[in-house]
Amino acid sequence: MKAFKELSKVEAQEQLAMLMEEYGQFKAKELKLNMSRGKPAPEQLDLSMSLLDTVSSETTAEILKEGTADDLRNYGGLVGLPETRKLMAEIMDVDADDVIVCGNSSLNVMYDMVSQAFSHGVAGQTAWAKLGEPVKFLCPVPGYDRHFALTEYFGIEMIPVPLTADGPDMNIVEDYVNADASVKGIWCVPKYSNPTGTTYSDDVIRRFAALSPAAKDFRIYWDNAYAVHDFEQPGESLLNLKAACSEADNENLWYMFASTSKITFAGSGISALASSPDNLAEIRGRLSLQTIGPDKLNQLRHALFLRDLDGVRAHMQKHADIVAPKFETVLRVLDKGLNGLDIGEWTQPKGGYFISFIGLPNTAKRVVSLAKDAGMMLTGAGATYPYGNDAEDSNIRLAPTYPLIEELEDASKLFVLCVKIASLETLLK
Amino acid sequence: MKAFKELSKVEAQEQLAMLMEEYGQFKAKELKLNMSRGKPAPEQLDLSMSLLDTVSSETTAEILKEGTADDLRNYGGLVGLPETRKLMAEIMDVDADDVIVCGNSSLNVMYDMVSQAFSHGVAGQTAWAKLGEPVKFLCPVPGYDRHFALTEYFGIEMIPVPLTADGPDMNIVEDYVNADASVKGIWCVPKYSNPTGTTYSDDVIRRFAALSPAAKDFRIYWDNAYAVHDFEQPGESLLNLKAACSEADNENLWYMFASTSKITFAGSGISALASSPDNLAEIRGRLSLQTIGPDKLNQLRHALFLRDLDGVRAHMQKHADIVAPKFETVLRVLDKGLNGLDIGEWTQPKGGYFISFIGLPNTAKRVVSLAKDAGMMLTGAGATYPYGNDAEDSNIRLAPTYPLIEELEDASKLFVLCVKIASLETLLK
Repeated sequence: MKAFKELSKVEAQEQLAMLMEEYGQFKAKELKLNMSRGKPAPEQLDLSMSLLDTVSSETTAEILKEGTADDLRNYGGLVGLPETRKLMAEIMDVDADDVIVCGNSSLNVMYDMVSQAFSHGVAGQTAWAKLGEPVKFLCPVPGYDRHFALTEYFGIEMIPVPLTADGPDMNIVEDYVNADASVKGIWCVPKYSNPTGTTYSDDVIRRFAALSPAAKDFRIYWDNAYAVHDFEQPGESLLNLKAACSEADNENLWYMFASTSKITFAGSGISALASSPDNLAEIRGRLSLQTIGPDKLNQLRHALFLRDLDGVRAHMQKHADIVAPKFETVLRVLDKGLNGLDIGEWTQPKGGYFISFIGLPNTAKRVVSLAKDAGMMLTGAGATYPYGNDAEDSNIRLAPTYPLIEELEDASKLFVLCVKIASLETLLK
Repeated sequence: MKAFKELSKVEAQEQLAMLMEEYGQFKAKELKLNMSRGKPAPEQLDLSMSLLDTVSSETTAEILKEGTADDLRNYGGLVGLPETRKLMAEIMDVDADDVIVCGNSSLNVMYDMVSQAFSHGVAGQTAWAKLGEPVKFLCPVPGYDRHFALTEYFGIEMIPVPLTADGPDMNIVEDYVNADASVKGIWCVPKYSNPTGTTYSDDVIRRFAALSPAAKDFRIYWDNAYAVHDFEQPGESLLNLKAACSEADNENLWYMFASTSKITFAGSGISALASSPDNLAEIRGRLSLQTIGPDKLNQLRHALFLRDLDGVRAHMQKHADIVAPKFETVLRVLDKGLNGLDIGEWTQPKGGYFISFIGLPNTAKRVVSLAKDAGMMLTGAGATYPYGNDAEDSNIRLAPTYPLIEELEDASKLFVLCVKIASLETLLK
């Protein structure tokens, strides 16, 4: 294939005309496709159906007969069920004592951390609401739109930091964090990052741990959403941030988040928070005013169903058996359709939920719009950047997990077509 | 019995000596009693065991086969499951559209409302965090310690308002709310109030609805925690605040809260928030950043188990059969031990979780301390007042639901004894 940039104007116009005809045929099919949703497919949810039977009236009566623990049905247990803390600690690669197990949404846990910092401050420092100037967060880009949305909600100024193949550009991170006391946090999805699939390198994580923040209340917001979401074993390895921070005498630098939303049920999983003893003491202070305790029965369901890290790994292999072929389908079609044209690059993740596509500048919005008009929803262009602002207008997030394989075949072909059209249009301008 | 105040000094000293001897005998028994815990007893939790079987792998597969609704196991459904919104609406005496069903803790929902007002304001008004002067809340007393604790956490100044037999003293409420723009809220437990068991009269509720707040962001925080927690049918009736506010052209004046914590499982119930369309729109704006949706499977459990208001009433009758005899035990012992002595008054609730005891001034702390030394935990004296400050030091909250009847017999006798001793000590000073 000839790179599009090397086409003469006439050749490009001819190509575009042919592609528009093909596009018209796609439109005529009146397809309903959707590659925007980062959520598990029904077959993935089916894998956890027996979780629903772990805590029945019968099994619960037996547990209550043993009678050593507090009554799981009643109030209490602010930091979560011991066996579930242990389970989440294994997933998060920390100790059970480091963990607080919470409700069904890790996003909610992250929201609460930012909200607490806003209203009450972190580590005895001034509450962000009371500071004269706005707080800043570093946001590796492309990144997770919901991190950005909640950060914006609190009026926090977001500073984009490029995500390299090894993780965030640490020169930029260090420059900001170590010099600017208004920089209070950085959002990280350190493994199979949303949307690029990047896993941070050991070197990057050691540089994180060795930061000397100008702000005493700077924290790393480490959203390990895809900790065990490997397509193959062993998956990409992630250096332990807790250990790295301790080695660097930066024990309190980190907050870690995880959930089972993409392990068991997206809506009815459990979430967890981990941090240092000092940080946890501060968080428990707020938590004790906010609730009398989490849903321990749902925590128990998870402990009984997943058991331990081996159980989790075995279960995640079943997810991989469903998800990996979907990724392969999309990647195969992208390869076939776009290789050699020099109009885009895309990631080849070894886990997680997304593929990140970078096209020519000023094409992403047009691709999303073309796709929509032909019956396919894509994540909004720009959604992966703070304030929805992708200055290059080149990044699109593809979410292959939810559609059927057959749908993905069509969807990927349509995507390729839209990318080609938008690229030619741009080159012809 | 002769009133203690009419005893001569010598008589009082003799009485006290006898009582101290009796107290010594109690101490020797090394009892372990606890009337501090406002939580359901295990037998109450047993009533809901079959809730755990409503959502099994089998029943869920059947529901999914019907396939009309969104997949309950996945993300989404920010405002809750339609059938559960309907159920909670019936309990709260509002429409399903007025309701957002949330997680396992209504305290968490209330915390979030105050937190949102603090960080972002209410109804487009200035965020409380950004106001020059502290916000004020009215707090009917005695009241619920956890309301006060979370209010204090946000630096809100709490103003105690006496709770009369009909509800809060509305002359005082009107004076504050209609004149002082820094008064932004009032905490109400309008039915079987914690700890007095008071149900607000129709007249009080109409006066609430007719308030003309100086602050546009003043709201009534209506924690209807004991909406269906009657000992007998029909229970005390509560005028519908929503309807009253609409009649008074004050549609946006109210936030309502409820939960099934004391209907099904205290730790694994569901909570709900109800309000006007304008208020709900504002709340949804925050919720959409905070979570991708609630635990819909647990909401489904509740809809299937409780079904509708008739189902709830039938279920609550079983609670009443357990709880009412416990209240009767405590009230009988108090009657027998204290009638005619003129050293205390107590409430005779028709529902809810508490009895409120008002003794002589300067006796409550001493009673709690005497009880503790004899092996009985009582709610800390002062806990029912903002800042833990019961200026009279006279109120003690008794929680009869958790202990066994036999324990309550002992506990109430010990309580009576401690009240007598503390009263004589005070009178002799």
